Amino acid sequence: MLDEHWRQLFGHAEEWIKEAGKLIKQSFQNEITIQFKTNFSDLVTNIDKQVEQFLTSNIHKAYPDHRVLGEEGFGDFIESSEGTVWIIDPIDGTTNFVNQQRHFAISVAIYHHGAGKIGMIYDVVADEFYHCLKGEGAYLNGVKLPQLKEKKLSQSLIGLNATWVTKNRRIDPAVLAPLVNAARGIRSYGSAAIEIAYVASGRLDGYISMRLSPWDFAAGMLLIDEVGGKITRINGESINLFEQNSVFVANPFIHEEILHNFILPKFDKK
Amino acid sequence: MLDEHWRQLFGHAEEWIKEAGKLIKQSFQNEITIQFKTNFSDLVTNIDKQVEQFLTSNIHKAYPDHRVLGEEGFGDFIESSEGTVWIIDPIDGTTNFVNQQRHFAISVAIYHHGAGKIGMIYDVVADEFYHCLKGEGAYLNGVKLPQLKEKKLSQSLIGLNATWVTKNRRIDPAVLAPLVNAARGIRSYGSAAIEIAYVASGRLDGYISMRLSPWDFAAGMLLIDEVGGKITRINGESINLFEQNSVFVANPFIHEEILHNFILPKFDKK
Repeated sequence: MLDEHWRQLFGHAEEWIKEAGKLIKQSFQNEITIQFKTNFSDLVTNIDKQVEQFLTSNIHKAYPDHRVLGEEGFGDFIESSEGTVWIIDPIDGTTNFVNQQRHFAISVAIYHHGAGKIGMIYDVVADEFYHCLKGEGAYLNGVKLPQLKEKKLSQSLIGLNATWVTKNRRIDPAVLAPLVNAARGIRSYGSAAIEIAYVASGRLDGYISMRLSPWDFAAGMLLIDEVGGKITRINGESINLFEQNSVFVANPFIHEEILHNFILPKFDKK
Repeated sequence: MLDEHWRQLFGHAEEWIKEAGKLIKQSFQNEITIQFKTNFSDLVTNIDKQVEQFLTSNIHKAYPDHRVLGEEGFGDFIESSEGTVWIIDPIDGTTNFVNQQRHFAISVAIYHHGAGKIGMIYDVVADEFYHCLKGEGAYLNGVKLPQLKEKKLSQSLIGLNATWVTKNRRIDPAVLAPLVNAARGIRSYGSAAIEIAYVASGRLDGYISMRLSPWDFAAGMLLIDEVGGKITRINGESINLFEQNSVFVANPFIHEEILHNFILPKFDKK
């Protein structure tokens, strides 16, 4: 069990995240400013930036020796996992935030010397707060999530955007296309943090994305670990916390079935 | 404006649908029985059947001369659009109901001599009730939805399951694949009724499915009409209310853009 220090940290983090959720909801009344990052589908708004600044300044004030790795760059320059590092996505699913005013999340993870301690994902509009403290299980709004149970792919819902089965720069569409028929159903919600939290809570049985950044999956990885799920790169290799990665997260039985029947045979051929 | 008769009908229908929603939520406590219809992804549960029976018997008791067309077959045999016909899907998104206990809807439409009078879609767990009375606008939880505004595909979210861009029996995957990159984003929620209601409320800007039955779209069609949206078959032709159809529903500007730039050129070539 984590000691009192981490419990106090969690208390502060939860409070700041809920407060940030209120700021975001208030912003629905105002006009938001949209900027494009790498391309027309990669958006950032003034609200993403404000929320990251709000969280970062709270962290720096309360814990001056902690460092922050944030999507929008208001944190610190991080090149090692030394000490306590917060990994923050102020709005995961910015496109949903802009187009739908829902289906986005605040994702916050706290790592210490590279080891995950606390993971939190807050689906703001649904008011669903997922959290875990290392080794103590994962929770949704305070209710403990059960361990993931044995299941077959034919009974499973998989989170997979159509992007990855049509022409794209990351993966041959033929690799994952057969999955679409083999699963009970395919869903796509547009927020990696929420989709990973859905795998942790059994609403999805798997989720695959070919390009995620640390802030997209840092909290989700910890939740998944607490419910006995598996999270790797698309080829089954370990994820590097401080890099862009492909991410393949699933119920452990489904992870095995997809990896060995769908992915590895295709990768081996090439 | 519809006369008092239809207003009274709407009052009853809303009451029965909300009551049915409670029945479904109570069923989460019990074990459900799952049967497979056409294949392993086509599920029906005892709850689908109970809810349809509940709605049908209420309708028959209160309005003995009305007829019911229901997904699970507890209604009447309908071969003409004469008189007043209720078109009912007790649980649209049964797979979500089974795997997620959320993201499903009750869909009810009332037609008179083939003309739509009342449309209702109830996302039970989100507690979002969409409704319209012909010619009086569409509402979400009592708040009027605005008319759909001009928009470009590059700013749009499109509901499209990965099924339709991978090998399937309904459409060449190459037809819709280019849409995936051209849109701002692709989503898939697994309930046609909810996805059509999302187009009506602007959360999605379009939704395409290659095989829907009358109960999947009968209520949604009416909502879409009230907000100035467009709903056709994939090739732009009119939908036949009493048949399986492909369904292509969208903001009118997006409908035009997709039809003329993506769909018709491909169909013409063949």
